[in-house]
Amino acid sequence: MNVLVINSGSSSLKYQMIEMPSENVVCNGLIERIGQQNSKFVYNPINGEGVEVESAIATHKEGLSKLVSYLLDERIGVLKTTDDLKLIGHRVVHGGSTFSKTRLVTPEVKSKIKDLFSLAPLHNPANLLGIEVCEELFPAAKQIVVFDTAFHQTMPSIAYKYALPKQISEEKKIRVYGFHGTSHKYVSEKANEFLGTTNTKLITLHIGNGASVSAVENGKCVDHSMGFSPTTGLVMGTRTGDIDPSVVLHLIKNLGYSVDEVSNILNKESGMLGMTGYSDFRDLISQSQNGNSDCTEALELYAYRVKKYIGAYVAAMNGLDALVFTAGAGENSVDLRKLICNQLSYLGIELDDNLNNIRAKELVEVQTKQSKVKIIIIPTNEELEIAKQCYELI
Amino acid sequence: MNVLVINSGSSSLKYQMIEMPSENVVCNGLIERIGQQNSKFVYNPINGEGVEVESAIATHKEGLSKLVSYLLDERIGVLKTTDDLKLIGHRVVHGGSTFSKTRLVTPEVKSKIKDLFSLAPLHNPANLLGIEVCEELFPAAKQIVVFDTAFHQTMPSIAYKYALPKQISEEKKIRVYGFHGTSHKYVSEKANEFLGTTNTKLITLHIGNGASVSAVENGKCVDHSMGFSPTTGLVMGTRTGDIDPSVVLHLIKNLGYSVDEVSNILNKESGMLGMTGYSDFRDLISQSQNGNSDCTEALELYAYRVKKYIGAYVAAMNGLDALVFTAGAGENSVDLRKLICNQLSYLGIELDDNLNNIRAKELVEVQTKQSKVKIIIIPTNEELEIAKQCYELI
Repeated sequence: MNVLVINSGSSSLKYQMIEMPSENVVCNGLIERIGQQNSKFVYNPINGEGVEVESAIATHKEGLSKLVSYLLDERIGVLKTTDDLKLIGHRVVHGGSTFSKTRLVTPEVKSKIKDLFSLAPLHNPANLLGIEVCEELFPAAKQIVVFDTAFHQTMPSIAYKYALPKQISEEKKIRVYGFHGTSHKYVSEKANEFLGTTNTKLITLHIGNGASVSAVENGKCVDHSMGFSPTTGLVMGTRTGDIDPSVVLHLIKNLGYSVDEVSNILNKESGMLGMTGYSDFRDLISQSQNGNSDCTEALELYAYRVKKYIGAYVAAMNGLDALVFTAGAGENSVDLRKLICNQLSYLGIELDDNLNNIRAKELVEVQTKQSKVKIIIIPTNEELEIAKQCYELI
Repeated sequence: MNVLVINSGSSSLKYQMIEMPSENVVCNGLIERIGQQNSKFVYNPINGEGVEVESAIATHKEGLSKLVSYLLDERIGVLKTTDDLKLIGHRVVHGGSTFSKTRLVTPEVKSKIKDLFSLAPLHNPANLLGIEVCEELFPAAKQIVVFDTAFHQTMPSIAYKYALPKQISEEKKIRVYGFHGTSHKYVSEKANEFLGTTNTKLITLHIGNGASVSAVENGKCVDHSMGFSPTTGLVMGTRTGDIDPSVVLHLIKNLGYSVDEVSNILNKESGMLGMTGYSDFRDLISQSQNGNSDCTEALELYAYRVKKYIGAYVAAMNGLDALVFTAGAGENSVDLRKLICNQLSYLGIELDDNLNNIRAKELVEVQTKQSKVKIIIIPTNEELEIAKQCYELI
């Protein structure tokens, strides 16, 4: 059975069709710059010639209609009729405290996703739009929503609560939600499969342009670095990660920045980009190797912050069986993994430099023989995780 | 030689006169509610009857003049003339990046303290006022300033920098400064004395109404939980401690709070008080024992955050020789120390419940025999530390 996985953003949409339970990819692609003159449309069927077109696509509906025409194409299509597609899985960023599991779309579910707009004003409306257009275009398909926050709903209150006045946290729903849940779930389950037990203490490091850490005990998320929003936690490509909240107040009150300017600074102009002018780890590392001291310092600061989260979660779980690296730089950056694991022997973490010298395409262990803690690289696959969850649900 | 130690706040002033190098207290006291009708004046000479008066004191100068009259009093005074006092040590909260050491007051030093007003608008002006009044009243005394931030100036850049755009952090001087430095310095030196070497890895926990943690390696602060301001880090009596900066933006932009209201919430209405209605650990613990579940949860959350800092700093130093508890609850709360040290055996930390059953009046070890890490309670004495630094400087 084919599952179409949709990740709908405000002006872009990524998709992938996966046959379940074989897990084979049938086709994938994206639609970018929706609403502009130079929109981009990409369609790659696994057994056929790919398509890449640049022309105006005014709306999500127009983009998805275009996708339908390719899916049904006689030569390079993968469906006979739209009714052949029975299952569509939608990534939804924010499930708040409402959704702790993957759910079949109903009018009630859609209304609850709407209720969460204020918590994710950029993402949830775009996610819902994707659902509504798919309902129109694929009337025979079951629509299913998979929430980026759901995996983190198992955190205990001492991990997800902020020390704010009780009334404000409760009434205004201000707490740690956590994000990247689909990825942390996928790699922690893969790790447990590999370890042959779910009776484990894991730290999963999702290190891409966005980055987050989860503490996963006995298969359940018990702590997580992102918070009410994805701004906080680890340093990221363009986000600050953890920072004194008084800095926000100081920038607004004493230095004259507007609220929107500060939001833009913290989310789009900070992180590795803000410190160095570069946000891609490949650039940062080659710059550092060529003597750019800002890049060297930023990489060390980045790794230092990761180290501190590792230590914090080892303390939280009073132990650690495996440290799991995933996502772009987590899977591919030999140097970054080395910087992070350096000098962590007291915690039982010892990286083998030879084994680590790899861009991982599949699960691989990279600790030394003496290392008490396993260090595992696991390529993440959020689309597959969404497809699996949809398939399991029905 | 007598040293008068002054801690001057915006509407209150604490003082203590200490004879050096004997470290004997000669007198101490305070002036509270300056500028109000019901100001309070307290003077306690060590060998004589104390004084406690409630009457209007309009200004710091009026309050310190009153102190002078008692210091010179024939019956309960401790000085013959004001010229007998040769050394006054002033606590100054914010030394910015300018001051990494205790300094003799000069016009230049005063002007630099003024330059730092924007970083500590509540504290530095009051501290400077105390200095200027003392210069008038004790013209023969050397005035010395001891900065609360100075001990933390040894932190490496990867610990003190935020991942903000480089230009903003540098031009606007936004970085981790750290506070409670006098206390962390005092107890870390006492711990090293006790351990017989400065070649140590320490974590010092200052847990009073305000609270902070330092990582101290080889006698130098290498990391610290408070940041640009004292709002962040551990949960405190009325401060949030660490929180997603986006919460600040959300409160202002989407929920209509003003900047001042948010500042007030984060600093005065949050923390233990905000979560439970109680800010004193004695109340919190007795409430918890009487079944108040908010208090139980808040205490667990508090201890959990401390644990995570301990783990983070163990990772940062790749080891730990001693965990040091100090300040109000750190010295006195048997239950809080137990909650914090519980389930940290992976890090080598094991508390002996019998030894821990103490309100420490002097240095005491409370770890089990098997514990790899020493757990030491050391009563802090910021006034004595200031007096020592003044005496050493001259």
